[in-house]
Amino acid sequence: MTSRPTTVSPAALLKFCVTCFVKLGLPVREAKIIAENLVFANLRGVDSHGVIRLKVYAERLRAGGFKPKAKPRILCENPSTALIDAGHGVGQVAAMKAMKLAITKARKTGVAVVSVKNSNHFGAAAFYAMQAVERGMIGLAATNSGPTMAPSGGREARLGNNAMAIAIPAGKHPPIVLDMATGAVAWGKIFVAQQEKKKIPTTWALDKYGLPTDDPDTAADGGLIQPLGGYKGYALCLILDILTGVLSGGGFSTHVKTLYQELAKPAQISQACAALLIGSFMPLTKFRRRVDEIIDLMHGCPTAPGVDKIFVPGEIEHQTERRRSANGIPINPKLKKELSELGMELGAASPTWRIN
Amino acid sequence: MTSRPTTVSPAALLKFCVTCFVKLGLPVREAKIIAENLVFANLRGVDSHGVIRLKVYAERLRAGGFKPKAKPRILCENPSTALIDAGHGVGQVAAMKAMKLAITKARKTGVAVVSVKNSNHFGAAAFYAMQAVERGMIGLAATNSGPTMAPSGGREARLGNNAMAIAIPAGKHPPIVLDMATGAVAWGKIFVAQQEKKKIPTTWALDKYGLPTDDPDTAADGGLIQPLGGYKGYALCLILDILTGVLSGGGFSTHVKTLYQELAKPAQISQACAALLIGSFMPLTKFRRRVDEIIDLMHGCPTAPGVDKIFVPGEIEHQTERRRSANGIPINPKLKKELSELGMELGAASPTWRIN
Repeated sequence: MTSRPTTVSPAALLKFCVTCFVKLGLPVREAKIIAENLVFANLRGVDSHGVIRLKVYAERLRAGGFKPKAKPRILCENPSTALIDAGHGVGQVAAMKAMKLAITKARKTGVAVVSVKNSNHFGAAAFYAMQAVERGMIGLAATNSGPTMAPSGGREARLGNNAMAIAIPAGKHPPIVLDMATGAVAWGKIFVAQQEKKKIPTTWALDKYGLPTDDPDTAADGGLIQPLGGYKGYALCLILDILTGVLSGGGFSTHVKTLYQELAKPAQISQACAALLIGSFMPLTKFRRRVDEIIDLMHGCPTAPGVDKIFVPGEIEHQTERRRSANGIPINPKLKKELSELGMELGAASPTWRIN
Repeated sequence: MTSRPTTVSPAALLKFCVTCFVKLGLPVREAKIIAENLVFANLRGVDSHGVIRLKVYAERLRAGGFKPKAKPRILCENPSTALIDAGHGVGQVAAMKAMKLAITKARKTGVAVVSVKNSNHFGAAAFYAMQAVERGMIGLAATNSGPTMAPSGGREARLGNNAMAIAIPAGKHPPIVLDMATGAVAWGKIFVAQQEKKKIPTTWALDKYGLPTDDPDTAADGGLIQPLGGYKGYALCLILDILTGVLSGGGFSTHVKTLYQELAKPAQISQACAALLIGSFMPLTKFRRRVDEIIDLMHGCPTAPGVDKIFVPGEIEHQTERRRSANGIPINPKLKKELSELGMELGAASPTWRIN
């Protein structure tokens, strides 16, 4: 017997998350931003950044690692830059303020960068970058994170799986949305290989001595994820840490804590958001046509054997979003139980689970 | 008998290049910029972007693909952005103007982006990014190039091995300088594997059908380089093409020609330069200390077996630059002959070759 998948409507899941965050002490407006970010990820099929994080967010809000009453403050500004102190609040709240400020500034000057320190996990980076797209801009959002990778040649975690998203408006096509971490793969893929007793490419992970391994069990035994593409990925990862953590005056490298570590302590995460006004360079309608053209050139490329279709970044997520908006977000039994229990604890009514 | 390596002093090589470019019809000031860019690459050990390009530059200048009399023009400006038409001149001239303009604007507003269309090959990207570092800024320079890679799943070249450099000032340490193309490797590494009859990693190249191959001969027989780290590299490469070619109104994807193709025709290359004023976020001296700290954290990471030292991006190039500044730039016999012949043709006296 296959277990029947449970789904939940995006609206119901959103309402549930908002209620949980309000019960945890957040103002409604902020609760909505965080909830929208989590449900955005689930809608787009990026379940690793969706409501699976609700429980640990709740734990950190109660333990003190996330401060529910924190108000992000602008510390200094220039016409095209700003620095925000997130006050150890939830990352989504500060990052949304940063992206909105970048958009406002870019509308006047053409481009803006806003840096954030004393922040926390901010969920899916594409969420912020896409705010810019809705306003006819190119958006960028980047974050550092607790150390999980070594510099090339090393065997100890000194860099997070630092991530960035870049979103670009198109015309007839959905926007191009790159949202990537600088690691070769997520740990999840290595766990799957363990379960399936399969070898992994030697570019994915290191063993505990810092040597590449093709054995997922060896990787999982004290090893590390490798940066994507070797030393180029290491370089990108380091530069993201500098553009977020070093430049903001916040945490970087080993000063940053991971989400599941020391729940009572601020994670010292840093972020950066940027917006670029397309109208500074050409009319937006012309740009949209040109982006459509480059997308068509990618789609029209002759394919390798076994490949049905070529995608551009964000396209699969967009298709998933359309499907899940109509049919609901699938929730696995473990997550359903976790969310239901959290709702009970907080006094938030569970959303209606639909058994398909 | 091993052939004795020939070297040339950087000053003599620079003077030779300047003379060649002047003989080819460029004003002295512009000849110097191009020559400095080429010798910069040789000094830093990036010989693929050094004077090995002089001959094809000369050929394009004579054939009309590079226009020696072109003057880059600012087409439109905002406080933090500008668009430059390079008029199909040599890429170095337009890119230097773009970077200087970005620096001037960033000094006032905190950050600036300048886009360039109708440009040509601009040599080593780090050259421009490092202009910003000298002025207490973070610099970025990006370029697209003639198509040599397929989108993930494809088997036809639709994207250049698009490249970018990011340079970041440090304190006691040399600046961090990332300068990378978005391909997994340069073709040169595949040619070396062919000569040495060695297998290559399956992440380097595709065969002519678009399938990954570990055989360098199969790769060289109509295959393509893969983007670095798989689909993430493809996404980065596509986004660089949009930020340079699509946004500037210039060439992108298959509209761009490679340097060695159709010498009489403009290559339709596009570029982007950006500068970020560190003083907008914190005093530069504090930033320099913080960059030193993250470099020390990388250097201090315990190493994997067989690894002596961990480097940060640009560190090896900096060491090479110090060494070659003192000892001269090595020139192989083939290149020496090529440069000597070109000098004769143009009436530029060859530099003094030193036999060590």
